[in-house]
Amino acid sequence: MNRTSASFADVAGNGLLDRRLLLKGLLGTGILVASTRAMGNDQPDWMQKPGRRAKLYGMPAAGELERTGRVALPPQLNASAPLRSLHFTPLDKLRGTITPAGLHFELSHQGIPNIDPDQHKLVLHGLVNRPLYFSLDSLERYSMSTHCHFLECSGNTTTGWQDPAPDHPLAFSHGLLSASEWVGVPLATLLDEASVLPEAKWIIAEGADSGSLSRSIPLQKALQDCMIVLYQNGERLRPEQGYPMRLLNPGFEGNSNVKWLRSLKVTDTPAMTRFETSRYTDLLADGKARQFSLKMDVKSVITHPNNSQQLQQKGVYEISGLAWSGSGRIRKVEVTADGGKSWAKALLDEPVQSRMLTRFRLPWRWVGQPAVLASRAEDEHGNRQPTRDALVAARGTNSFYHYNGIHGWGVSASGEVNQADV
Amino acid sequence: MNRTSASFADVAGNGLLDRRLLLKGLLGTGILVASTRAMGNDQPDWMQKPGRRAKLYGMPAAGELERTGRVALPPQLNASAPLRSLHFTPLDKLRGTITPAGLHFELSHQGIPNIDPDQHKLVLHGLVNRPLYFSLDSLERYSMSTHCHFLECSGNTTTGWQDPAPDHPLAFSHGLLSASEWVGVPLATLLDEASVLPEAKWIIAEGADSGSLSRSIPLQKALQDCMIVLYQNGERLRPEQGYPMRLLNPGFEGNSNVKWLRSLKVTDTPAMTRFETSRYTDLLADGKARQFSLKMDVKSVITHPNNSQQLQQKGVYEISGLAWSGSGRIRKVEVTADGGKSWAKALLDEPVQSRMLTRFRLPWRWVGQPAVLASRAEDEHGNRQPTRDALVAARGTNSFYHYNGIHGWGVSASGEVNQADV
Repeated sequence: MNRTSASFADVAGNGLLDRRLLLKGLLGTGILVASTRAMGNDQPDWMQKPGRRAKLYGMPAAGELERTGRVALPPQLNASAPLRSLHFTPLDKLRGTITPAGLHFELSHQGIPNIDPDQHKLVLHGLVNRPLYFSLDSLERYSMSTHCHFLECSGNTTTGWQDPAPDHPLAFSHGLLSASEWVGVPLATLLDEASVLPEAKWIIAEGADSGSLSRSIPLQKALQDCMIVLYQNGERLRPEQGYPMRLLNPGFEGNSNVKWLRSLKVTDTPAMTRFETSRYTDLLADGKARQFSLKMDVKSVITHPNNSQQLQQKGVYEISGLAWSGSGRIRKVEVTADGGKSWAKALLDEPVQSRMLTRFRLPWRWVGQPAVLASRAEDEHGNRQPTRDALVAARGTNSFYHYNGIHGWGVSASGEVNQADV
Repeated sequence: MNRTSASFADVAGNGLLDRRLLLKGLLGTGILVASTRAMGNDQPDWMQKPGRRAKLYGMPAAGELERTGRVALPPQLNASAPLRSLHFTPLDKLRGTITPAGLHFELSHQGIPNIDPDQHKLVLHGLVNRPLYFSLDSLERYSMSTHCHFLECSGNTTTGWQDPAPDHPLAFSHGLLSASEWVGVPLATLLDEASVLPEAKWIIAEGADSGSLSRSIPLQKALQDCMIVLYQNGERLRPEQGYPMRLLNPGFEGNSNVKWLRSLKVTDTPAMTRFETSRYTDLLADGKARQFSLKMDVKSVITHPNNSQQLQQKGVYEISGLAWSGSGRIRKVEVTADGGKSWAKALLDEPVQSRMLTRFRLPWRWVGQPAVLASRAEDEHGNRQPTRDALVAARGTNSFYHYNGIHGWGVSASGEVNQADV
């Protein structure tokens, strides 16, 4: 074990170190044992008696359940939509890239319907030669493909549009973002079976919630990679994710991945539903509406450190975060510790998958001085995460959705972490 | 959409079709809608009223919880080990490759200890210059890597050694097998910090359960890729998986991945503990013991169809299953429908990761006649899953662990599925 291939010298301002050091191990925080003999005799209470049996469906440790639940929107912020259910993923408490299904973010405008899977049907109709319907059992007969993809609400990080942005906890500012292994039937298979007519251009997807949430999806996207998802992280889809079946449009904004999917109507024009006109549409600076902005932009955020913690001691830390793009794979993530003056390339954890969360990491030596940390991502098509200024120059300040500007954390001399401009 | 690149003609005996048909979609089972107008008016009960709010920690739908829980060992089979907790993953009910943490298999010889994470310590001692201990908080400061890996008990599929093998449900015969995204601190990092002495060859890992389960791990493996795991599928490790920390030895038999890890002692010889002498050791035909058989062999099983279902109608089915190897990536899986007379190459779902479950798929036309389905896997190092006969010729019949012979399903003319010899 040696570290000759990477130097402990800074590779960018304010203490950023070479990413290859992560492969070698960093200076650690293990505490020297005064007497190994003493350690061996120190058998804790839980070793003195047999343990319990496991349950048929396991749960997190009790303390972790309390510490790491989803985060609900405070009631006063939900007053305008009393039927809405809205919960954020606690990104500050999680590691890796997969989100456990129980902690996946959810936004259900009319609440979560209690569907009988044996009665539920999906109809495929409109501009097709053979209108069809499918039960859960009949879909189980099809060939199923497996893909890891993120889902992000287009309203995620909406507070970035505000100047100054409020210092919300990471879960509130970025937690409408999760990722899963999804298994389902390619929509192209069902469209092939129904035999789509030549004039078809769109598909109107409708959910079986009491609000019939409906969105128009380009037929081209549907033929390319949309899925009717039945399984999430190995098991059947969860109720708040659309049980027994949902639409998945990889890389498209969350609400277009219609949950509790009951109808797919093939049409020649979009439906201009409530959820693509009064909502999920942004006004540009000239007052024109930016509509069908379905694809999620390239984006990243540092999850560790974050503003729910405080650095306790000087030394080397791992800066770790997530990057993603609705267009494809992440190609590069850069990190700054001096508020954007200099940047260093982060390590990307393998496998880097298309339209999936990618974990990036970089070592950083904190010397007890103020710092401003931030990350910026670039995808395989050359799309780059913009500064807030560049984003506002392009889109104005009338927007609510699709904020993807660079996000910063300020670290004070005493180790406190707060949202910061970059 | 056309299927010109792949023919519907058989590629192997008894109805096996070209794997490329899966990318095009198969002849489906959608039911023709008599009247689309009628479908539109058919709003089910759950669309008539608002739904419920989500919980802070979500759970499967009630019906799914009953249908898809872990499978417990029948009490009469557990009589000899009353403290043991043993649960199987319901592979027949799952899809994809990730196992939800709540359905991960578990075998806890003395039950699951109720550990206070704030009091738990990991000691690293023995042949090192600097004996160290680590709390959960101190490990959180380290650089963490993320890897998807399977875990398999070496006693999984033990009934394959019996002749004839009993027709146990798939969960019993193969369900001591699961896979997760694991996040943790590379053990090499901690060993580097402790400064290992030149004469060191082994590490004795000990758990904080009441039985102090202990295993000897070669130092070479520890330096290569072992991890101290803190997170599973994004969230903190579950109690039955070793909360707050476990050892992970990618590709090695389940019990060696010591849970509730409390001590790592660096030594020059293995400890010859109870769990590597009286257990987890097989007798060869000549009576000699096969010891430290830590690496799991290449293996595969068809999960769909399986013996908890019956084929209801003639037509095209997707044969789907899992393949894995403790040595690296799966290179190839072949499927037979005629009991091994002819074989066809299955599609492998991407990404194929080292020492991770790989999902394979192949279309099959069932004409209502008897068939014997089976799969055989090969890994990137050329290791091949043997027939039962070849395995017995090499290892005798005194073994209990490490059975990896080819597994077959017989399909009767009426569509019943049962375990079958190949």
